[in-house]
Amino acid sequence: MNFEEKTIASEQIFSGRIVKLRVDTVELPNGKTSTREIVEHAGAVGILPVDDEQMVWLVRQYRKPLERVLMEIPAGTLEPGENPLDCASRELEEETGLHAGQWERILGYHSAPGFCDEYLHLYLARGLSPGKMNLDQDEFVQPVKMPLEEAYQAIFAGQIVDGKSIIAIQYLYYLQGK
Amino acid sequence: MNFEEKTIASEQIFSGRIVKLRVDTVELPNGKTSTREIVEHAGAVGILPVDDEQMVWLVRQYRKPLERVLMEIPAGTLEPGENPLDCASRELEEETGLHAGQWERILGYHSAPGFCDEYLHLYLARGLSPGKMNLDQDEFVQPVKMPLEEAYQAIFAGQIVDGKSIIAIQYLYYLQGK
Repeated sequence: MNFEEKTIASEQIFSGRIVKLRVDTVELPNGKTSTREIVEHAGAVGILPVDDEQMVWLVRQYRKPLERVLMEIPAGTLEPGENPLDCASRELEEETGLHAGQWERILGYHSAPGFCDEYLHLYLARGLSPGKMNLDQDEFVQPVKMPLEEAYQAIFAGQIVDGKSIIAIQYLYYLQGK
Repeated sequence: MNFEEKTIASEQIFSGRIVKLRVDTVELPNGKTSTREIVEHAGAVGILPVDDEQMVWLVRQYRKPLERVLMEIPAGTLEPGENPLDCASRELEEETGLHAGQWERILGYHSAPGFCDEYLHLYLARGLSPGKMNLDQDEFVQPVKMPLEEAYQAIFAGQIVDGKSIIAIQYLYYLQGK
């Protein structure tokens, strides 16, 4: 079956620091036309740091779209051309003050493929040692650590509601349970 | 610690069928100002249908933001005021032609809380029986079913790269493994 949607026209609506927005007019497989609203994003990384006592490190951070503080794994947006693992190492140290000696890629995924091209790279970080916390000027985050079991339960209690954090915590929880 | 970002100004940039976009000017906890680009979305549901043989049903669908076909769990956007479970039941039948007798809520989460307010409700659907496939006019999806084990491996092989699908498949895989 041919699903392709051919672009007939593309209108740039907005170009910001974090997202761009465009509206494409497309020809559908049945020959009709429709529009697709597309949010463009540079991509991001998320890191689940786990120490030798199976404590995981999360960060509390105010999220303006939700008007509240969320508890999430450390994360950050890719700079143009930046290697995802370099970005992950930088963001981990900036947000938690931790340096990691061992890195394992979990997986990559699209957060919201219906309307956004964002792709996230997820990592496990182990072999943690103190580094230097160094936040961006408009970034206010507070590191918290908790047992992996507690983080896992927090997903189903609605206390961790961030997609990338849920995927990474599920992964580690079941890896440890093997 | 006070993380709140107070809104000083809010500029509406775009209002479409699926997303809205606004830019808020905020006062940071340190008194400085910054901007936040915010994508507004009505929210959505995702459904992992699993039959009595532990086969899961997915759908292949062209995703214009990525310019390719993805394999995802059935899903759909909430209508204004719509009950999420009603939406899930409707979308499951529309996209796969299946009716489900048993529903279990897995969890809810934000897909991209850094720049978007989208919240997704995820469900397991069991007790499957034939219903009536009935797609929207601009929707072209193809149902596929596969063993749960195969779907789980597809996550780490990069063949399933959709966040909501990954969360739901991880959940069911480990539930079944208990």
